[in-house]
Amino acid sequence: MVTIADIWAARPVVAEVAVRTPLVRLQVGAAEAPAEIYLKLENLQPIGSFKLRGAHNAMRALAPETLARGVLTASAGNMAQGVAYGARRLGIACTVIAPENAPATKVRAVERLGGTVRRVPRERWWQTFQDRSYPGLEGATFVHAFDDDRVMAGNGTIGLEILEELPDVDAVVVPFGGGGLISGIATALRALKPDTQVYAAEVATAAPLSAALAAGEVREIAYAPSFVDGIGSTMVFPRMWELARQLLDGALAVSVEQARAAVRLLAERQRVIAEGAAACAVAAALAGDAGAGKVACVVSGGNIDFAVLTDILGELD
Amino acid sequence: MVTIADIWAARPVVAEVAVRTPLVRLQVGAAEAPAEIYLKLENLQPIGSFKLRGAHNAMRALAPETLARGVLTASAGNMAQGVAYGARRLGIACTVIAPENAPATKVRAVERLGGTVRRVPRERWWQTFQDRSYPGLEGATFVHAFDDDRVMAGNGTIGLEILEELPDVDAVVVPFGGGGLISGIATALRALKPDTQVYAAEVATAAPLSAALAAGEVREIAYAPSFVDGIGSTMVFPRMWELARQLLDGALAVSVEQARAAVRLLAERQRVIAEGAAACAVAAALAGDAGAGKVACVVSGGNIDFAVLTDILGELD
Repeated sequence: MVTIADIWAARPVVAEVAVRTPLVRLQVGAAEAPAEIYLKLENLQPIGSFKLRGAHNAMRALAPETLARGVLTASAGNMAQGVAYGARRLGIACTVIAPENAPATKVRAVERLGGTVRRVPRERWWQTFQDRSYPGLEGATFVHAFDDDRVMAGNGTIGLEILEELPDVDAVVVPFGGGGLISGIATALRALKPDTQVYAAEVATAAPLSAALAAGEVREIAYAPSFVDGIGSTMVFPRMWELARQLLDGALAVSVEQARAAVRLLAERQRVIAEGAAACAVAAALAGDAGAGKVACVVSGGNIDFAVLTDILGELD
Repeated sequence: MVTIADIWAARPVVAEVAVRTPLVRLQVGAAEAPAEIYLKLENLQPIGSFKLRGAHNAMRALAPETLARGVLTASAGNMAQGVAYGARRLGIACTVIAPENAPATKVRAVERLGGTVRRVPRERWWQTFQDRSYPGLEGATFVHAFDDDRVMAGNGTIGLEILEELPDVDAVVVPFGGGGLISGIATALRALKPDTQVYAAEVATAAPLSAALAAGEVREIAYAPSFVDGIGSTMVFPRMWELARQLLDGALAVSVEQARAAVRLLAERQRVIAEGAAACAVAAALAGDAGAGKVACVVSGGNIDFAVLTDILGELD
């Protein structure tokens, strides 16, 4: 179980690679927003997402001789870049196992950071994620995208920063993918300001936490792909479900259309590029689902396909 | 003449409305960039540009009875939003005289902030700018977009912030429109770290400062419009020329194509939306024109037409 002490310990380690991102007020009129909405701009991180916080914290906890044998992760997206970025900083080898349909732009981004990408069939990728190892690469340490205490502690530093900037925050909304981001942040908030409401944001077309909370247990759900590709799966991992049920105040699901509108608003009013997952948190706050007080939304990343982005911006009048 | 004391005095005033914007390292490989480039993200300000710093500082210097009669400015762009934003905060009336061809989106942005926009023929708009008054609105105080010591002092707070984040900065590159932004910043740098190189960025199709520096005196130049609409005019104002020749180390002109490439790079690598003027500063640094050390570029604003932005993003491979 991650503790606030782990998060404090992660802070100087995370600061070696991550930007102290700003928390800015969303520029919307009182009539447009039911709350004072603030944005924690993790899309400004070097790799365009929060992932390097946890990835780097996990790698730095390894003994030098272990580290020297390199690291391994299984990811199609932001975590691959987070691990590759940290590995380059540490001067070690990084291998990414990616599903064969991973977008070329994401593969290139990892390679630009010096990582080696192996494209494998989707089932093999998923197996790697489950096994936490890959044949022939047993020497490398597997870095899990979310189910890892050091990763969650690194992510939790976002919670410390939000509280420092906005000590009277009422609610925090965090995109829920694997659950490693919100678990870290909620751990920090529960320790330092326990009355803060902490909500998971999901996209309605792939909302396993909403389903689990409704049922009182993990459920496998139907999943429809959309441009919101950084979050959403068919089921919450059992350990992450245990954390979520203890730490969170609820899950807020938004429609794909609401997420698109939030991407547009963030570009128009804030001049930042947000990915679908991040937009879900903002959309939930805009819908009033996180209450009427001071609501901080974690804009977890900005890695959106530009064809999708230009399509969304084209909807503007 | 603006002094460092004026800039220190402006600091708490500016903090009433402006975000302490982050200074982030541009994510480019060593082979892509000749310098360590840093971005001062003024596009994250509430109105999407630095302009509210100077506008608010100028308005707050007015006596209450003067302030109560409202303010007036002549602008087609960011300054109009800066004055309107500050006026709303101060609870006073704001009138903007805009040329009749001002983009509807910019007019709407001012009106959303509670400002009143009067569209007038271009000559009448320019006359207002020269006269610093408008018939029938003599009671309102005119806030000049750049040629005003309080405005420049407010802008100069950006220089303080850059030095705090990056004390060993070697060079600072600032878009040159009227010259009020760079004059304020250069005043701060000359006082606190005199060896810093301070460069004006211009677009080659409208580069009056480059022409004046080459001739040793103000020259009227040919001007070709482009998507870089926040800077560029036919001539530097005489008083601004006096400041520029004393304070600056040079002017760096980039092509429209270089500016477009910088807009694209900032979206791809940094997930921020920059306007053409801001992109010129980054393009100059990327070209190596500001030297090989630690170069801070002022990303002055993000108010770019989305049709232009999507066109530029569409050029991506």
